[in-house]
Amino acid sequence: MNQINSSIKAVQEVEVKNIFFVACGGSLAALSIGDYFIDREISVPSKAYTSNEFIHSNPKSLGKNSIVILRSHSGTTPETVEAAKFAREKGAVTIAISMDTESPLCQAAEYTVHYNYKDGSDVIDGDNGVFYTLVFSILNVLDPNEKYERVLNQLNNLEELFESNRKLTYDRAFKFGEENKREEIIYTMGSGAYYHEAYSFTSCLLMEMLWINSNAIHTGEYFHGPFEITDFDVPFLIIKGEGPTRPLDERAIKFAEKFSNKVEVVDITQLDYSGIDEDLKEYFGPALAGVVLRQYADGLAEHTGHPLSVRRYMWKMDY
Amino acid sequence: MNQINSSIKAVQEVEVKNIFFVACGGSLAALSIGDYFIDREISVPSKAYTSNEFIHSNPKSLGKNSIVILRSHSGTTPETVEAAKFAREKGAVTIAISMDTESPLCQAAEYTVHYNYKDGSDVIDGDNGVFYTLVFSILNVLDPNEKYERVLNQLNNLEELFESNRKLTYDRAFKFGEENKREEIIYTMGSGAYYHEAYSFTSCLLMEMLWINSNAIHTGEYFHGPFEITDFDVPFLIIKGEGPTRPLDERAIKFAEKFSNKVEVVDITQLDYSGIDEDLKEYFGPALAGVVLRQYADGLAEHTGHPLSVRRYMWKMDY
Repeated sequence: MNQINSSIKAVQEVEVKNIFFVACGGSLAALSIGDYFIDREISVPSKAYTSNEFIHSNPKSLGKNSIVILRSHSGTTPETVEAAKFAREKGAVTIAISMDTESPLCQAAEYTVHYNYKDGSDVIDGDNGVFYTLVFSILNVLDPNEKYERVLNQLNNLEELFESNRKLTYDRAFKFGEENKREEIIYTMGSGAYYHEAYSFTSCLLMEMLWINSNAIHTGEYFHGPFEITDFDVPFLIIKGEGPTRPLDERAIKFAEKFSNKVEVVDITQLDYSGIDEDLKEYFGPALAGVVLRQYADGLAEHTGHPLSVRRYMWKMDY
Repeated sequence: MNQINSSIKAVQEVEVKNIFFVACGGSLAALSIGDYFIDREISVPSKAYTSNEFIHSNPKSLGKNSIVILRSHSGTTPETVEAAKFAREKGAVTIAISMDTESPLCQAAEYTVHYNYKDGSDVIDGDNGVFYTLVFSILNVLDPNEKYERVLNQLNNLEELFESNRKLTYDRAFKFGEENKREEIIYTMGSGAYYHEAYSFTSCLLMEMLWINSNAIHTGEYFHGPFEITDFDVPFLIIKGEGPTRPLDERAIKFAEKFSNKVEVVDITQLDYSGIDEDLKEYFGPALAGVVLRQYADGLAEHTGHPLSVRRYMWKMDY
């Protein structure tokens, strides 16, 4: 919390002209949820970049009035470390999020926000809790609103909500694994903040960990090209979000269900939100979706006999 | 040109705080190239949205100091028409790009930019020429630079460059079609402005027109999940861009070629740039890439016997 306070103090001290979220893969997807909230809630422009694109495309608006939030689980992702150095040289306020404060990323950035990982501590000190605390604290500094204070308070419920929603969706997730264990391709879909959950599930769980072909399709884009691939035997996992873009998901589900016999709908409004105010559900939904989707991957791992820890390239070679 | 002048005049008359590019599918991909150039060249923030996401997520910074550029080939895409109305109600300067000035989109937006389509007129009056003219005129108004004036002049070479580059890549494109005619999935990759060419090829040509499974992977993201899907028999079509993000593409190509026997590299620096100044090549590359990639789709259509005009849902039902 002291670390977050230092970061927030730094944000308060500059005239913030823009916010950049910079990371790779699953970390980029997680940060993109912050980008979505900033975009929707306040008028400060924000954008998310994969780290190497950020460096090489060199956005003109990056400078001393910029906040650059970077994230890497281990803090060792080379492109993200470079991006932190690059942004810092341009005079931006750099905030690194990682589980390891001694990591190269945390050393490269000016400010560090640490989260706990698998050490038995509460979810609020884990990656979700810490990132939400940072984002909603920034929102509250840039455009104070009692709503954001309530989000910060209600984050204390995350631990129990993760547990209850895991239980709630366990059977369905493992059934999905059984039903889809022979599939060579599974499409995912989502919109709003949930698009990034679909992206993460596609890139990190299906393609990386399970070696199943995939593509995360935005439910608003589905009708503009991708939907022609739909057929009776094409599997889709579609996130039906909690929040303003839900109508996009509903439309895609209605169409996909008409022409495919293999549509799995993960309805985020049906999850347990105990302790969360009605008007705050849309903020908590993406965090809950992440936990639930992870279980769908566990179900596939169980039934394909392909553990999520298996890799053929990562950790085995330089690239 | 009068239409573009009116749009530019409107841009000159507001204090531009941000630029939004709003469309669906292939039109969104085309606009996203403009978003890339704005981002790289000037400090005015810009962002691209699929139309329905734009309306429902309702970005807070949208208002009377916003420029909203919308695009639809026919001008009838319902979400984009709604997005134009939505942006106009918020007081933004709305500019619609379409081949039909009588279309609902052109009626909904305040300013209209028309392009010719398959009527035998020069490329500069077609979708690429007109969009480039608009984007580089806006750049030149917001941050005048002789470079942008040279781009505008050299757009007159597009007609010949499209023709010469079609010839240059014809054999290779049709050979690709022959080699890949039995593939059920073909991944595409790219970065920078070319990421959007990859997205367009994946969504509109492979998935929509050819019913081939695909996913457009950013070459910077490839190493953070998707690369684990790589194997000797997995086909990739990778755009090796002309511009600052080329090193990202080179790295992805090097890895993919090591583990897959089916890597097709489309090297944009090897194209014909006659009449284009060396420092302007990166601006012209994406337009040339689009023309070249279209030919790769023609090659697949020829060898799969699946014409690009076939649809199973579009034009056949309401959705």
